Amino acid sequence: MRLAVLGVGAVGTSVVELAGEYGHEVVAVADSTGAAVAGDGDGDGDGDGDGGASVDDDGADRGLDVAAVLERKEETGVVGESDPDAALEADYDVLVEATPTTLGDAEPGFSHVRRALERDRHVVLANKGPVAERYEEVRSLEAGSQGTVLFEATVGGAIPVLSTIADLNGQVTAARGVLNGTANFILSRMAAEGLGYEHVLAEAQDLGVAEADPTFDVEGTDAALKCVILANVLYDDAYRLADAEVEGIADLPGSALELATEDGRTIRLIGEVAEGTVRVGPRLVPENGTLAVTGTLNIVQLETTHAGRLNISGRGAGGPETASAVLADVGRLPPLE
Amino acid sequence: MRLAVLGVGAVGTSVVELAGEYGHEVVAVADSTGAAVAGDGDGDGDGDGDGGASVDDDGADRGLDVAAVLERKEETGVVGESDPDAALEADYDVLVEATPTTLGDAEPGFSHVRRALERDRHVVLANKGPVAERYEEVRSLEAGSQGTVLFEATVGGAIPVLSTIADLNGQVTAARGVLNGTANFILSRMAAEGLGYEHVLAEAQDLGVAEADPTFDVEGTDAALKCVILANVLYDDAYRLADAEVEGIADLPGSALELATEDGRTIRLIGEVAEGTVRVGPRLVPENGTLAVTGTLNIVQLETTHAGRLNISGRGAGGPETASAVLADVGRLPPLE
Repeated sequence: MRLAVLGVGAVGTSVVELAGEYGHEVVAVADSTGAAVAGDGDGDGDGDGDGGASVDDDGADRGLDVAAVLERKEETGVVGESDPDAALEADYDVLVEATPTTLGDAEPGFSHVRRALERDRHVVLANKGPVAERYEEVRSLEAGSQGTVLFEATVGGAIPVLSTIADLNGQVTAARGVLNGTANFILSRMAAEGLGYEHVLAEAQDLGVAEADPTFDVEGTDAALKCVILANVLYDDAYRLADAEVEGIADLPGSALELATEDGRTIRLIGEVAEGTVRVGPRLVPENGTLAVTGTLNIVQLETTHAGRLNISGRGAGGPETASAVLADVGRLPPLE
Repeated sequence: MRLAVLGVGAVGTSVVELAGEYGHEVVAVADSTGAAVAGDGDGDGDGDGDGGASVDDDGADRGLDVAAVLERKEETGVVGESDPDAALEADYDVLVEATPTTLGDAEPGFSHVRRALERDRHVVLANKGPVAERYEEVRSLEAGSQGTVLFEATVGGAIPVLSTIADLNGQVTAARGVLNGTANFILSRMAAEGLGYEHVLAEAQDLGVAEADPTFDVEGTDAALKCVILANVLYDDAYRLADAEVEGIADLPGSALELATEDGRTIRLIGEVAEGTVRVGPRLVPENGTLAVTGTLNIVQLETTHAGRLNISGRGAGGPETASAVLADVGRLPPLE
């Protein structure tokens, strides 16, 4: 497949780097400041005058020289001289939307999805916004398009949650789990070391596990968006963030963790989708139980009608990990007519 | 898809029962003593004179009346009056091979696979024999056929192991886990209750968790077959049971489990595929660690190049659970030309 990758953060960069290993080629890369598009003469500095694209003997476009594009981004801060919009006009099969998640109207991600589907192209999302905030519109656009929309990377990073749900063909009745690695790291450390929230948060920021502004993770918003996406998939409905009942961990006293430990339990930030409701909040779980994953791990439990309970755990974030989910989605797409 | 189901044990029966929920129809069912085939006039007793098939107003074949077929099996011991071979000649899209696993030449399962592929039909296996003992031949037949062979149900029951490996597109470097629920039940009980092997085995037999002849499970053969299949998939090679290093749990003294417990560890029958070798045997694992699943649960850990370690646990056996994996495979098959 020929990929156009929007967003050159950790995930977008890894998709660009790993696409070749999965047998795909990158024909366009863009962030908010510029784009490199195969064959557009954007002067990527590889000296072949084809604008970053390698060209076969017969002149057929073989895609961008991704190493040159990423090197340019590293050195100059921009991936190419073209207008970012040029990537959306490129001759791609799959638009990989890996720009930052935005809430409310989910723009500009939503418009990127719309433009790709209107051109009958596939879309693979790492950006949670469009499928968390405007799911019904995305599905409606997809219904009128030859393209398909997949978004495994939006829930649980490397963990194959959505593909497992799809394979089970309507048999999954509920889902719950640990869906934010930053919050889980903080809770694990607080419980294991008896340290306070502020102390552990500062430590997580030093380690790069928490952002300078950790609100999105510690207030439960990120986990809630993932649960909203799960609810949309499980119930084929139009849940939004506003429909979720969300409580974070910022106000959790260390004493609560101590009391839990004395009782053989611990506290995790658990997201849950069941019986039509979406809830995220700190919950007591057995200390050595399946849900008590440690560090930045994520886990998802799926309840099924015929296959019992499935537990899937692994790395819920990270560039290469999340890119693996993006590229697995690309591999599942049907060929375009 | 139109399914022909061979084998009417726990898995085959559940496939027949659940196929409709997944949007498929059953056009033939056979065990070693007889067959029911849609439209063959086998006198299934439903009184419509069409041999067990329901017929549309326009006369198009709508598949077998599966409730009538299973009721007949229950009452008379046979699914139908037709020769078992008739199911292989039926007008199906997918042959579901759920006859008992046999070792060595893997017959009659292997011949069933061959005949379906020679007719350019798909094959979904619950029978481990053909892909554990004659993998290269199966792949060679598949290469010359329009049909595709899938076998998720052969490894870990309801757990989506092989589809996850396929989605990761060559990024899985090693696999290990608990792949036999009977052995795991016995080890869990021995450790938790301080009971001896013979006592717990008898208990497991009473509960239906262990067979009257438990050899296949407790000697490690079943887990080894699953690991051989994993090795064939991971290395695209021709491993057979004879290539696996296998040790069971029948000779494990209770004192070994006691010593492990004193050290914060326990013993599990672990299968491992790594660096070209296949090994199954009792191993020390952390008592509350990921691999120490309890009861009849199975777990598989996959090591990947870019996505870290994935853990997937759930029910590794059981009719409906394993049938879910069979039907997920059916859903993944491409349409036949």
